[in-house]
Amino acid sequence: MSLELEEISLQERFMEAVASEDKLQIMDFLNNQNISDVAELIYDNEDYETQIISHLSMHRAASVFKILELPVQKRIIKHLPAFTTAELLNELPADDRTSFLSELPSNAVRELVKTLNPEERKITLSLLGYPEGSVGRLMTPDYIYVYEHDTVEDVLNTIRKFAKNSETIDVIYVINQKGELLDDIRIRDFIMAPPEKTVTELMDGRFIALHAGDDQEVANEAFKMNNRVALPVVSKSNKLLGIVTIDDVLWVANEEFSEDIQKIGGTEALDEPYLDISLMKLFKKRVGWLIVLFLGEMLTATAMKYFEGEIQKFVVLVLFIPLIISSGGNTGSQASTLIIQAMAVGEITVANWWRVIRREFIQGVMLGTVLGLIGFIRVIVWAGISPGVYGAHEVRVAFTVGFALLGVVLWGTLSGSMLPILIKKLGGDPAVSSAPFVATLVDVTGLIIYFSVAYLFLQGILL
Amino acid sequence: MSLELEEISLQERFMEAVASEDKLQIMDFLNNQNISDVAELIYDNEDYETQIISHLSMHRAASVFKILELPVQKRIIKHLPAFTTAELLNELPADDRTSFLSELPSNAVRELVKTLNPEERKITLSLLGYPEGSVGRLMTPDYIYVYEHDTVEDVLNTIRKFAKNSETIDVIYVINQKGELLDDIRIRDFIMAPPEKTVTELMDGRFIALHAGDDQEVANEAFKMNNRVALPVVSKSNKLLGIVTIDDVLWVANEEFSEDIQKIGGTEALDEPYLDISLMKLFKKRVGWLIVLFLGEMLTATAMKYFEGEIQKFVVLVLFIPLIISSGGNTGSQASTLIIQAMAVGEITVANWWRVIRREFIQGVMLGTVLGLIGFIRVIVWAGISPGVYGAHEVRVAFTVGFALLGVVLWGTLSGSMLPILIKKLGGDPAVSSAPFVATLVDVTGLIIYFSVAYLFLQGILL
Repeated sequence: MSLELEEISLQERFMEAVASEDKLQIMDFLNNQNISDVAELIYDNEDYETQIISHLSMHRAASVFKILELPVQKRIIKHLPAFTTAELLNELPADDRTSFLSELPSNAVRELVKTLNPEERKITLSLLGYPEGSVGRLMTPDYIYVYEHDTVEDVLNTIRKFAKNSETIDVIYVINQKGELLDDIRIRDFIMAPPEKTVTELMDGRFIALHAGDDQEVANEAFKMNNRVALPVVSKSNKLLGIVTIDDVLWVANEEFSEDIQKIGGTEALDEPYLDISLMKLFKKRVGWLIVLFLGEMLTATAMKYFEGEIQKFVVLVLFIPLIISSGGNTGSQASTLIIQAMAVGEITVANWWRVIRREFIQGVMLGTVLGLIGFIRVIVWAGISPGVYGAHEVRVAFTVGFALLGVVLWGTLSGSMLPILIKKLGGDPAVSSAPFVATLVDVTGLIIYFSVAYLFLQGILL
Repeated sequence: MSLELEEISLQERFMEAVASEDKLQIMDFLNNQNISDVAELIYDNEDYETQIISHLSMHRAASVFKILELPVQKRIIKHLPAFTTAELLNELPADDRTSFLSELPSNAVRELVKTLNPEERKITLSLLGYPEGSVGRLMTPDYIYVYEHDTVEDVLNTIRKFAKNSETIDVIYVINQKGELLDDIRIRDFIMAPPEKTVTELMDGRFIALHAGDDQEVANEAFKMNNRVALPVVSKSNKLLGIVTIDDVLWVANEEFSEDIQKIGGTEALDEPYLDISLMKLFKKRVGWLIVLFLGEMLTATAMKYFEGEIQKFVVLVLFIPLIISSGGNTGSQASTLIIQAMAVGEITVANWWRVIRREFIQGVMLGTVLGLIGFIRVIVWAGISPGVYGAHEVRVAFTVGFALLGVVLWGTLSGSMLPILIKKLGGDPAVSSAPFVATLVDVTGLIIYFSVAYLFLQGILL
């Protein structure tokens, strides 16, 4: 059962089947593998990817297709015969179809939606109507519903009839004639109940429902807190629209966090595995932000030019420039990352900005005092060890460094923590207030703070 | 069904029930709420948290307890009477108990394990024996198993008998007399099969099993790829040890990613929501890394001191120090974050280091050329607009800035991408090679690169 061993022999057995050139043998081989193993074969044999999909039974082809990376999905759709594409799209569960289509350009979507049969087309267009990142986009209409007055036997018959086509049968939904959700009941309760009992007798009215317009983060939280494998999605008037299954939420959580981390690092979301993405694409995703940051950082040269007089007179100030601006940058990155993460998991909303600012003010003063003190002591001690190393005014230099650090660190925590909230408030993604972005912002202002403090402490000497 | 509305009235109804001082009424009220709502009440009423837990039926108390934040769990365990604590711990599912106990100091674990009944104690000690972060720690032994020769009717009877105590009945496991796993079969297949059919006839031998020693990341990936709500865990000899359910993996994924993001930002993992953690704790989690980075960054002052002669003679060099070191820092943070993320989701392993280094070398040259060119043009253009702004040697300065940028950016991408891999190789957590950490490393070396390039281009003038 070792994964390594299996992988090798799987590939070998695949090559054997391919070598036989016997269509039936290839189909038989592929249809007897786990879908994750077939996906593995597709990744390892790019030349055969379209053939592998077309040699699977349509149901299994759909199961494999939905777990592939987007670029591979696109290539396969491009190479499959139009008829097979239509069959495949019709077979895909509605939620996976929506998520695939929403990644394509709109003219491609239009063409592909045309190939769907009328019922699936209606479902797909309605799901695509929900905003990106909403629970509606994750919904599937393939669930089992029953009515209150049904008996347990009726329910088990319904399950037998519809189980093949529904995403999960772990939970059964009770609705009334108006289609309103009354309860969700686990299948285990039906299996354990005598057949003549009615659904009403099994109901406890304790159910958790999501709304189609809810953020997907809400679904994540609801699944974490409620020990369910599927949750119902209702309209504002409590009509049951569909269900969301926990595996889709796990996919979303993985993708969301990966994108957040990439953005925090100052890259656009890659959307492809690092080792698979082409060097040119990778370059394009990285260079954009770097240029923006570079242009911003150019202001440091302008700011320094402005203080050139002070620098000329007092070169010792230069020695501490990197130390001071990067301390501001580090505290700023730290604060912004903490806030981005807390916002990503829903611990902080824009409404909390005042609480955050108060907390970060205190943090900034505490952190700034610690770093300022260390900086102050550093200058005094060095000057004690090698007298004259910082010129004749080492105490003033020490005070300048210490207070500049306090100011820069405080400014770093405040701007680092407020920036993600501000971006969110303006409708953007807080994760773009990345660590490098905050660091750059704080670098420029940090220089101004430093030279202003220096001006204050060294006034008598400079003037 | 609006969440907002419900929350308000829930709290009000809770206060009403409390005001009645009628134990039965309080119990009745609490036992009729969703477990996530009870958790909400506990968070909103810290003074009552222990009472809320002790007014629930033991089964529901355990369901609520397991979704609470760790600090709240600790407080409740501290305040509950010893007898109730024992009952609660015995009632907790084995996987949740393990994850709670593994967060406590070892003497507390010893005391609490003593309160377990012999069977639960054996299970707990065995689960605690698996390494942290392994699949073994997430396992629960509460699953339903059947034998190959059982009939569908036997299986349904087994399900009726054991369903109450198992985490999920969506999947049933087939084992032989030696306890080896033969297959997993979804409950839907049993419900749809005629009662006299045997398990053997339903088996397809296609099952995915995890190993107890596997990293939890493997479980995450397996769930994403295999459309299952539970996966079996086997020993090296294929004995069925337990199962892992998808909801536990969702918890782990959420926590892991949050911790990774916090570490990338240069903070220790908070383990508590941002707004709940005390200011002092938050300060402690942040100040440690900041001091380390600050001490590292002090080397910039030392490096600058070393080049003081050059600086004195050529103050214009100073103007570009922040621009150059922060460009290195930004590309370094970007590279390290990309690699950390790719390692976190298993796209890159230590074995890929050579491929990564080749890719990053090319990226570094491309990014460095772009930024270097922009820097070069910046100096030439400025010097054209206001002649003399950079002294008499603006072309040499422009070349210095351009080539220093190329060197620093290349060094940033290479060290930023290799550091997480190196840390992983040494057995550490790659996420600690945080953006600020890489930025600091690149700052110091960036200065040395800059002044070395300057020395090369300005040699004739400096000497």
